[in-house]
Amino acid sequence: MKRTHFAKQLNEDIIGQNVNVAGWIEDIRDIGKIIFLVIRDITGPIQVIVNPKKFPQINEIPRQSSIIISGEIQKSKSKEMKVELRLEEIGETFYAKHPLPIDPTGRLESALDKRLDARALDLRNENVSNLFIIRSIALEIIRKTLRDELFIEVNTPKIIGSASEGGANLFEFDYFKRKAYLAQSPQLYKEQLILAMDRVFEIAPYFRAENSNTVRHLTEFYSVDIEAAFLDYHDIMEIMERLIKNIITGIKNTGLLDLKENDLVQNILLENKFERLTYNNCIEELKKNDQKVEYGDDLSDLSLRKLGQLHQGFYFITEWPLKLKPFYILENERDPFLSNSFDLQIGYLELISGGSRQHDPDKIRSRLKEQGLNPNNFSQHLRVFDWGMPPHAGCGLGLDRLIMSLTGTLNVREVVLYPRDPDRISP
Amino acid sequence: MKRTHFAKQLNEDIIGQNVNVAGWIEDIRDIGKIIFLVIRDITGPIQVIVNPKKFPQINEIPRQSSIIISGEIQKSKSKEMKVELRLEEIGETFYAKHPLPIDPTGRLESALDKRLDARALDLRNENVSNLFIIRSIALEIIRKTLRDELFIEVNTPKIIGSASEGGANLFEFDYFKRKAYLAQSPQLYKEQLILAMDRVFEIAPYFRAENSNTVRHLTEFYSVDIEAAFLDYHDIMEIMERLIKNIITGIKNTGLLDLKENDLVQNILLENKFERLTYNNCIEELKKNDQKVEYGDDLSDLSLRKLGQLHQGFYFITEWPLKLKPFYILENERDPFLSNSFDLQIGYLELISGGSRQHDPDKIRSRLKEQGLNPNNFSQHLRVFDWGMPPHAGCGLGLDRLIMSLTGTLNVREVVLYPRDPDRISP
Repeated sequence: MKRTHFAKQLNEDIIGQNVNVAGWIEDIRDIGKIIFLVIRDITGPIQVIVNPKKFPQINEIPRQSSIIISGEIQKSKSKEMKVELRLEEIGETFYAKHPLPIDPTGRLESALDKRLDARALDLRNENVSNLFIIRSIALEIIRKTLRDELFIEVNTPKIIGSASEGGANLFEFDYFKRKAYLAQSPQLYKEQLILAMDRVFEIAPYFRAENSNTVRHLTEFYSVDIEAAFLDYHDIMEIMERLIKNIITGIKNTGLLDLKENDLVQNILLENKFERLTYNNCIEELKKNDQKVEYGDDLSDLSLRKLGQLHQGFYFITEWPLKLKPFYILENERDPFLSNSFDLQIGYLELISGGSRQHDPDKIRSRLKEQGLNPNNFSQHLRVFDWGMPPHAGCGLGLDRLIMSLTGTLNVREVVLYPRDPDRISP
Repeated sequence: MKRTHFAKQLNEDIIGQNVNVAGWIEDIRDIGKIIFLVIRDITGPIQVIVNPKKFPQINEIPRQSSIIISGEIQKSKSKEMKVELRLEEIGETFYAKHPLPIDPTGRLESALDKRLDARALDLRNENVSNLFIIRSIALEIIRKTLRDELFIEVNTPKIIGSASEGGANLFEFDYFKRKAYLAQSPQLYKEQLILAMDRVFEIAPYFRAENSNTVRHLTEFYSVDIEAAFLDYHDIMEIMERLIKNIITGIKNTGLLDLKENDLVQNILLENKFERLTYNNCIEELKKNDQKVEYGDDLSDLSLRKLGQLHQGFYFITEWPLKLKPFYILENERDPFLSNSFDLQIGYLELISGGSRQHDPDKIRSRLKEQGLNPNNFSQHLRVFDWGMPPHAGCGLGLDRLIMSLTGTLNVREVVLYPRDPDRISP
């Protein structure tokens, strides 16, 4: 027996037809003359009407077992659904052994750790799998938006031969008797590539050996990176604003989220521009609100939480002090203490970090030295800047954090199938 | 000055308009009264007409320097192009320092190693960047095809806590005082996920610590993985055949490849089914062709080269002996010496490996033992099979190899921006 339909493909147009559906048994209710069976697949539930005289064995099948069945589509008497299936044949059954480690129907709640240990079963809860359907739709919208803006998708290496961007928090390993590292970002590669490819983007996993256990950090995370020749940080902010608005529209259209509980997606006014605060604005505002912070300081978690209270939805913080930013960020032309940089924030959470890039290799060398890095370790990168390197700008967006904030979840582990943190490397 | 147009956006509709274009200087020809300048961006070349009295400095700019200029679009007198640009203003110039390590115009050929050392510059050759535009288009087509077949895109971890699939050739590293490994494939994760998500796909980098230096092996490679509940290996072959035909159609439509030199893409008849040979067929055919091979043997490189001569285009080899396949492959129901497996070949090159999966956990345990693996190391994986695991099938496609064969290149390094092999980890 072969599946002919998914649950969502069953509708009034095929009443009277025989179909084969497959999925798992979510519920069995025996009310004597009839047994109601709920079979679910990734697209939704199907109500199945079973004649207990014809199929007495159905009561013996444990819930969550997978099954393939055949039957006729008929109009449903229930108000909750338009059609149901009258069981006519049971195909192969694949038994679930009870007790199960968690209850995927959600009637019994389990702690996140227990759910992650049984992630495959956890995903049989519609509220959980919807998060990952939303994630896949967001990926699709991101790629479409960037292609429409003439960005080309690229794949840069995750194995790198030298500790770029400073070398802190890199996973190191033996590579045929040499040292190699796992990439923390595609920063240097994407900058090199715009020499010829103009506009590039990459969506890929990166790695950070940081021993911190918070709701927003993982050791393996997905990043959306873009880089573009002849654009500046203002252009990049515009692109990212359009991108996020496209994702929100797309997610709203899926109908997969219960928006009542998600103020962000429900309330954001897509016609309004995201707020743009300079770093200077932020310091003044924080001082007015009795925060201990001085001009030139980095914004602490506490300061960002205060700003998050004062500013609803997404907001940019622009023109950070240059010394707080990586060596590849361009100084501001009016005030070289500042930089042509931005972060996109939602509440206290940093979602995007970007800026115009330094394209003068001598200035990059000085900044490397200032940050205690050896320019000689960057020689393979710096030579590209002698080949006619145009001005460029770009940014990196933390995909997991974005999905976390858009879906209203409070822990990044909720939106990553198999999250990795210092304590968790399996399953 | 801001770029207003890319090269390909210049056409007869905007004759008389003033535009700003940006790119690099590919050529300068001074014929006295006029200087012809060719500026190229990723979308193509632009011919620029320069008045040497007005812009005498243009001859001083080294080739490959990046530049932004302004001018009026006019009808071209040349037969090779419809419009050209009359230079009116030169914006900022970003100088290329000569001598350059390679000549990206292709007038002087360089060895592949030298080109890879200067990859960013190498990509200014249109024939090179076209390979990566084709790669990005192939990625887009793959995702669209799979979404249309109801596959959901997922992201599984690249850091794994136990040496799945045998443990040979894994990169190992210290993960907060524990051992961790880089994933060789998403095999176990994608199988787990179909318990709830029905059909999943992932396109991601994987890692193999294999000390071999051939034209078809890399230590970091991109794989397209799919897995589906309630489908078998025949279904998966059908999906992959449709997928590859869609990619070929898409690549043909780009016009980016010189098809005269690429028999594969030019000659493949999309209306014909890919040939399907059983392993048995192959052994008989090889014996007839005086190859030393016995029933039950793996097919050597030499055998595959012979088969590649005998079979044009793509061909499947199905129903391999079970012992030659990994522990997760299902035995054949008619002949348990064989398996419900397939490879897709092009010439001697294996592009896809797939099959129906074993879904009985006791049989997986026996096969693990047969292959010298300890089932206890797979306990986190095997428990999923007690939760109502449906029958399933899937495959992995080597993306780099596919792009290599479709573009008619002879070394997989040609189609990977920054390839990784035992000798190469930078740039």
